[in-house]
Amino acid sequence: MSLIVQKYGGTSVGTPERILNVARRVAKNHSEGNGLVIVVSAMSGVTDNLIKLAKEISTEPTAREMDVLLATGEQVTIALLAIALEKLGVPAVSFTGAQAGIVTDGVHTKARIKNIAPKMVKSALADNKVVIVAGFQGQTADGHVTTLGRGGSDLTAIAMAAAVKADLCQIFTDVDGVYTADPRMVPNASKIAELSYDEMLEMASLGSKVMQARSVEFAKKFKVVFEVRSSFNDNPGTIVKEETSNMEAVVVRGVSLEKNQAKVTIGGVPDKPGVAVRIFSALAAAAVNIDMIVQNVSAAGVTDISFTLNRDELPTARKTVEPIVRDIGATGFTAQEGIAKISVVGIGMRSHSGVAASLFEALAAAGVNIQMISTSEIKISVIVDEKEAPQGVKAAHDKFGL
Amino acid sequence: MSLIVQKYGGTSVGTPERILNVARRVAKNHSEGNGLVIVVSAMSGVTDNLIKLAKEISTEPTAREMDVLLATGEQVTIALLAIALEKLGVPAVSFTGAQAGIVTDGVHTKARIKNIAPKMVKSALADNKVVIVAGFQGQTADGHVTTLGRGGSDLTAIAMAAAVKADLCQIFTDVDGVYTADPRMVPNASKIAELSYDEMLEMASLGSKVMQARSVEFAKKFKVVFEVRSSFNDNPGTIVKEETSNMEAVVVRGVSLEKNQAKVTIGGVPDKPGVAVRIFSALAAAAVNIDMIVQNVSAAGVTDISFTLNRDELPTARKTVEPIVRDIGATGFTAQEGIAKISVVGIGMRSHSGVAASLFEALAAAGVNIQMISTSEIKISVIVDEKEAPQGVKAAHDKFGL
Repeated sequence: MSLIVQKYGGTSVGTPERILNVARRVAKNHSEGNGLVIVVSAMSGVTDNLIKLAKEISTEPTAREMDVLLATGEQVTIALLAIALEKLGVPAVSFTGAQAGIVTDGVHTKARIKNIAPKMVKSALADNKVVIVAGFQGQTADGHVTTLGRGGSDLTAIAMAAAVKADLCQIFTDVDGVYTADPRMVPNASKIAELSYDEMLEMASLGSKVMQARSVEFAKKFKVVFEVRSSFNDNPGTIVKEETSNMEAVVVRGVSLEKNQAKVTIGGVPDKPGVAVRIFSALAAAAVNIDMIVQNVSAAGVTDISFTLNRDELPTARKTVEPIVRDIGATGFTAQEGIAKISVVGIGMRSHSGVAASLFEALAAAGVNIQMISTSEIKISVIVDEKEAPQGVKAAHDKFGL
Repeated sequence: MSLIVQKYGGTSVGTPERILNVARRVAKNHSEGNGLVIVVSAMSGVTDNLIKLAKEISTEPTAREMDVLLATGEQVTIALLAIALEKLGVPAVSFTGAQAGIVTDGVHTKARIKNIAPKMVKSALADNKVVIVAGFQGQTADGHVTTLGRGGSDLTAIAMAAAVKADLCQIFTDVDGVYTADPRMVPNASKIAELSYDEMLEMASLGSKVMQARSVEFAKKFKVVFEVRSSFNDNPGTIVKEETSNMEAVVVRGVSLEKNQAKVTIGGVPDKPGVAVRIFSALAAAAVNIDMIVQNVSAAGVTDISFTLNRDELPTARKTVEPIVRDIGATGFTAQEGIAKISVVGIGMRSHSGVAASLFEALAAAGVNIQMISTSEIKISVIVDEKEAPQGVKAAHDKFGL
């Protein structure tokens, strides 16, 4: 008998029928003798409807009250799932984030978990009840409702698993697990059985939109083993855990693609201290998220600085950078949309050389031109034309025998 | 400057537009320097939708989880009203029943308030914030969500008014106040300016569906003065408070009518101890709400016992009473639908004689036949044919010069 935390997202609980399906799955796990904590999101569409309602009243609703409003979404789901379980004869009890003891800081709409005191949860588990916890929400130490922001329900599940010392945390979603590449793009992509936290982090931050990086980081910090799997079938998913020695035998774990990118290049930048900080602190102040930054060696005392960002943020970036270009005495700047980022990820790279060369070779053979390169210890990313990206991903996937 | 508790029902907050209207009214009261606690219900229709959702999952959802589910209805409204107030520049903060310190017993779906510890409410009032509290809900001492059952939001308002020692509690609803009779039936019915708790109790229990009796009882117990008034206009409403000597000058305060009644008569009941208890304890066990009970003196050792009840409960009552009729050796029983109850209420009756005679005279003159009579200290009720009820109400209203 194991103690398992399971998380079901908005699609998995999107209708009464689907909630009953989840209940049947949970009932089966319970009948096998497992202790169960089930974390659920709001039914799909509910959160959007609540936001729409608030916007009909005010274009700028206050963050504190948005949290009070949105927290109702998950509260509806926990009650309905508990009702479904009790209909199937399974003892169940639902708790809001506050009742489950999830204490956060006071940063409304994107609070961080400070600690978990799951007294009611533990007591209900001891009574052999299935415990259902509202994801995405918590409460400050002085009793105000908070929400955890994007990916908050995954974070609730990982954090609950750490707090109750669960044997396993299962993240049920609408995909089967983490793949070596997007199966819609690479038909022979295969599901990865095991992945290290660091690899998952790189995948997560690279557009393999299975989980937000913050949940993976939390899992890594508290050594929570978790599995990403589908709520619509019984296939085993992808297990994410601390790296093991045999994980290193695989050089490249997967290939990911991030579209909708844009690139800004500031040309003729005087090569002296304090220039880069001028640019990037201004962008940070304007809340523009920068992804890759590339600066090459300078020639004749000037250099080019390039960075990539989400295409949606390009207008703000333009407005922010333009006056600085003049100030720092650069010769100009160009912005380009229609680019994409291809990355290969694998902790095996640390102990294998020639991975970059193999990637560049594969891209060249496929006729894909590389515009920018950036590498980390377990990842190599290249910027290419968005139109050439699909054949680039396929070529890389084939090259590394995934 | 006064401290005022206001309660707005589901119709008053039924749309974003109406929530903004409530916010404008509250903003005006706040600008006049008043401290304000606003209790709100779920937007009209929301609670029914939630119940429908639960019924799609289970025909018998558990009471605890229904409370978790239904409590979200009011939580949505408090957030939206706070957002509306802050849009108007009025500092506001919303609290769930639990956050407002409303502690109840553990009888889910119809919990009773045990005590109120409004720490967060008082602290927010001290900061000059408008405090918005979710009606209808509370929390047990060990942290489970409860709801207060029918009329729960009124009860929340009255109880909050008692807890914060408010100067006045205003119950905003879709009617202007309490009338001497139903204006749809008696065109010259007039609004009552002041009413004692006891009179309001009799009106409340008699189908003047402005407020549930339990809220009035709570107000009486804690001497909370409250006003029933419309949220759609600025007319003064009806003030309900402890009785004053000049209230007694008015003999009859109002005439009320309750339709959809049924009458059961058990005939030839042996006149001996223990017979009535057999009948009515069985009905109580079957959760049938009995209204009037009439038993007249016996003749030849047998008597007739009649009682009235809501028509919807007649089938259950039949099934319960039938076997007992045989057991106790009664000669039979009859059940009759299509009756109504007319009542005249007024604390002045205590010191005035002849009220019953005047009522009977008025009904006789109007050709309305009386089937049953029951009286209390401040009320006289008669059962009449439902078809004759409207002219009966008009006749009584005219007779007492209302």
